[in-house]
Formats: sequence, structure tokens, C-alpha cells
Amino acid sequence: MTAPPDLSPDRTSDTSAPAWIAADWGTSQLRLWVMDARNQVIARLTSDRGMSRLCPQDYEPTLLDLLGDHLPTGENYPLPVICCGMAGSRQGWAEAPYASAPCPPPGIAEATQPAITDPRLAVYLLPGIKTTDPTDVMRGEETQIAGFLSQGSNQQETQVICLPGTHSKWVRLDQGQVTSFSTFMTGEMFALLRGQSVLRHCVSEEGWDDAAFTQAISESLAAPASISAQLFRLRADALLTGQRPETGRARLSGLLIGAELAATQHDWSRQPITILGTDTLARCYETALSALGCVPQRVDGETLTLAGLSAAYDQLQKSQTP
Amino acid sequence: MTAPPDLSPDRTSDTSAPAWIAADWGTSQLRLWVMDARNQVIARLTSDRGMSRLCPQDYEPTLLDLLGDHLPTGENYPLPVICCGMAGSRQGWAEAPYASAPCPPPGIAEATQPAITDPRLAVYLLPGIKTTDPTDVMRGEETQIAGFLSQGSNQQETQVICLPGTHSKWVRLDQGQVTSFSTFMTGEMFALLRGQSVLRHCVSEEGWDDAAFTQAISESLAAPASISAQLFRLRADALLTGQRPETGRARLSGLLIGAELAATQHDWSRQPITILGTDTLARCYETALSALGCVPQRVDGETLTLAGLSAAYDQLQKSQTP
Repeated sequence: MTAPPDLSPDRTSDTSAPAWIAADWGTSQLRLWVMDARNQVIARLTSDRGMSRLCPQDYEPTLLDLLGDHLPTGENYPLPVICCGMAGSRQGWAEAPYASAPCPPPGIAEATQPAITDPRLAVYLLPGIKTTDPTDVMRGEETQIAGFLSQGSNQQETQVICLPGTHSKWVRLDQGQVTSFSTFMTGEMFALLRGQSVLRHCVSEEGWDDAAFTQAISESLAAPASISAQLFRLRADALLTGQRPETGRARLSGLLIGAELAATQHDWSRQPITILGTDTLARCYETALSALGCVPQRVDGETLTLAGLSAAYDQLQKSQTP
Repeated sequence: MTAPPDLSPDRTSDTSAPAWIAADWGTSQLRLWVMDARNQVIARLTSDRGMSRLCPQDYEPTLLDLLGDHLPTGENYPLPVICCGMAGSRQGWAEAPYASAPCPPPGIAEATQPAITDPRLAVYLLPGIKTTDPTDVMRGEETQIAGFLSQGSNQQETQVICLPGTHSKWVRLDQGQVTSFSTFMTGEMFALLRGQSVLRHCVSEEGWDDAAFTQAISESLAAPASISAQLFRLRADALLTGQRPETGRARLSGLLIGAELAATQHDWSRQPITILGTDTLARCYETALSALGCVPQRVDGETLTLAGLSAAYDQLQKSQTP
């Protein structure tokens, strides 16, 4: 049996050697990035083994299995795994208790280290943020915000970040702190109504209608209380006027996002807005806000997740420097 | 083989002989009432063979199968079957085209008779009502409204009827006519959010909390645009304050019904309201409206369905009298 190659002398200079693992461990998905010492991505790995499918004892084998050849050899361990998302929730691997807003996004000093048997890994679970009046929670988004702040955003300014998603969040920032935030179930309501309600017959899975979307945004913003009646109109319009399912899809999205924009009007009408995300949903929010005269900045969400996790890795390196 | 007994001489005098069949054929359920000539119920029959499970050719065998021993014998046929609900929709047995509001609830003269091969039955499908600005439809509720009007309600008065259900309806009446109406997806949204969203973990299937319900009604009425954020708070409260799932259930119901009441405030704050229904849901609407200072009348929905179908049967009898 030959000894494994010792890569340690090259560790800091060889940019292709894994220096740490960035992880976004959500409810339904796990995303890993194998990172070098200069915070460049060596490899991307994804899995459907999200929190909802795992017991606490499943996390370590899942990591080992997915990392495979990327696991460190020789004396290059433990390899830090810095993880944001639901793995740090009470129902996850181990609880990383929420930080309380107002606060800066929590970093490595607030992370929880779950018990782990394999000496090759050292896992750090970053906490989420809570607010108590009114109550709200985030877990994962705080790391994107840390990434946003690390990228030279003007931290003196009051600003608002919108994070579209299954549960979209509107986060108010002041001097590098998260001062308050609100979560909206818009994305999940869209999925439920489109796929499982009486509207599934008149709302398509694909396709779009730009004019119908912006029209629905306006209607919802003008009368947000009527949204539940406007939703049933999608069915009535399909029955009575032959409205196309693609138009139904765009209207459903517009009505729901419009209600969210009605509730957040005091945010987007008064200060600069940044949308975190580059997918179709984020572009819908951008289209809607632009139609309302608010021109948001839009930045890539994965880039910010990695920037936030990299900031935590840099903190870890500093804390370990004598 | 002996001849079946001939019941015809006793037909009008014997109150236990079937004179007609009342039917409420909905999306998921079929309810039949075997009626005597004095519009008294001889027997109740129910089945899960609703429209969603049937092709057009399935309706006649379903009726024959369910009626069984109640089918007429000798010369007592055809037995009229008067039917409201989704069986008269385009996706049902045969289309009974919508009447257009403003109009009185349509009666037997507007009914569609589907082709039927068995000579023992004559089926009449009552139409629903549509409105075009804004678009909306009802099918089944118009028969309850006909029943309500037939029971001596003051037809001169402007009044509003609330019909709670999967898709609740608010119907404005004036001088015996349906002038306009609005449908809300409140009941279906409750079922989807309770059973299939992230809230399923913090909203119980049973149980209740009166104070939480009326508090949520007030919150939703005060800020209906914020409902999607208030919904996520149910999860945050469960995580952060240990809110009981029974409280979550009452709050979820209160937030959704509260949004509906915000949209219909111009109705219930200005004129007499009647709630059609006696189930738990109808009592929730009564509690909510009472807490808001509007004391609604509440009447039994099944009674009104039967009264409406009976009114159509009486019209049929008159039309057949030389």
C-alpha cells in the first residue's frame, strides 16, 4: 500500500488544490463548491439530498459521498466546510441559533460545529437571522447579504434588497446591518395555485404574456384586497372569453407579485433597490418594478452566496492565524 | 315473472311515492333527494361520482345505479330529475349555457335536457349565471338563491348573500334579480396552504382558537396587502414563540377570510347580509362579521338547494298543465 501523495507544500500556491468547501444546504437541494485558497471555484457539485430528506446522522455520509475524490489526503485535513441554509436549522444537522436583527449578517464566529466522526472535515454551520416584532426568520439569505456587503456596496446608505424565491424576502440594510425584513409566500402560492388548484386548467406550465403580466401588476397594486377574487377571474376568463393559458400564467404571476409590491411600496418607492437573483423570477420582479418607475439594480445570487461563504472562510483563516 | 305493481292511481295522493328527483351534481360529489309530490324528501342518496370523475356517457348509468329501487315502475315515467351544479357545465353531462346577470335565477324554462336512452327518466340541467364586467361565473349557487327568493324573502329590497365554500360567493340581489357577484378562492387557498405548503407543520388539521381567529380578521382587514407576509409569520411564530398549531389554524383562516371581508366591505357594511350555510365554515363567517358589527342572518344551504329545485319542479308542473 503506497502512501497518499502529500500535497501540503503546494497548498497555498497551487490554486487547483481544494482549500475549503462552500455549501448551501437548503430544504430540497444541496449545492457544494470545491474552493481553492484564492476563493476560486474548482468544482461544483449538486444533490437532491436536502434537509427535508435527511436525519441528523445522514449529513456526514452525504457530504463524504458527494465530495468523493475531492476529500483531502495526507495531512491536508481537516478541510473546512462552510455551510449556510437549512442544515443549520433545528430540524437540520445541528442548530445554529438565529442572530437577532438589527445585526450584521452573522459570520464564522457565530457558526455551530456539528459533531463529526471523520477527521478529514471540519464543518461550520452559519446561523440565520430572526426578528421578533413582527416575527420573521431567514436562513441562507443572510449569507447572500454578507456577500453583497463584502462586494463594496456603500454600507453607509440605507438600502433595500429584494430576494425573489419560493419565500421572497425584502431586507432593509443600514450601515452594514440588517435592520428589519419581511417574508412573502408569493412563490409558493404561485406553485400551489398553478399546479394544484382549480386554476391548473387555465394557467400553463410554460409560456408568457408580457402585457398581461404588467396589467395584472397594476390591478393588484391598485386593489390588493381583491386578489382572491381576481384569482378566480382567471378561471372565469378562460371559460367566458377563451383567455389563453399563457396569459393566465402571466396574470397569476402578476397578481401575486403585485400584491407583494403593494405591501412593500414604502420600501421600493423611497430608496435604492437591489434584486438578488438572475433567474426568470428575478427578471419578473425587475420588469414589474421598472414598470412602476423604480429601476432596480440586479445581481447574481450564486455569486453572492459564494462571496458570503468566502467572507466567512476569510474570517476563519484570520481567526486561525496566530 | 309477475308484473311490477302499478302505483299510478296513487301518485298524487300518496306522499311516499317518488314524484321527482332533486339533484345537486357537483365537481366532486353527487347528492340526490327522492321527492314526493308535495316536495317532501322520501330518501337522500349521496355518491362520490362527481363531474371530475365522469365522461358524458357515464352520467345516465350513474343515475340509474344510484336510484335503484327508487326508479319508477309501471306507467309512472318519465320521472323528472332536476339537477343543478357542474353536471350542466361544458365539461359535464351537457352544457346548460349561463344566464347573464342581471337576471333572476334561471328556472326550468332555461334548462337543458341531455339525450338519455332510458325512458324512465327525464333530466333537466339548470343553468348557472355569468357576469362579464368583471367576468365571473356561478353554477349551483343560483339554485340556492332561487330557493332563498322562493321562501318569501323581501324581493324589493337590495340585499347581499354570502355563500361560504371552496370558492365563496358574494351575491348582490335587487328586486329578485342577481345584479352582480364576486367569487373568492378563500376556501381552496386555506386547504392548499394548510395541507401542502410550508405552513402544514404549524397549522393543525383540527382544533381552534377563537381569540386568534378574530385577531387575525382584524389584522387582515386593516392591512389586506400584507397577507402574504402575515401568512409566513405563522411559520415564524411557530419557530420563535412556539405558537400552537391550533392557533395557527385559526389565524390562517382569519387572515384569509379577513382579506375577503376587506374586499367586500362595501357590501357588508351597508346592507343586510344573509349567510347561506350551517357548517363550521359558515359559522366562521358569521363570527367574523358579528365581530365587525354586522349581524348577518344565517340560513341552511341544503334547505335552500331543495327549495330552489322544488321551485323548478313547480314550474315544470305548471308548464305541463294544459
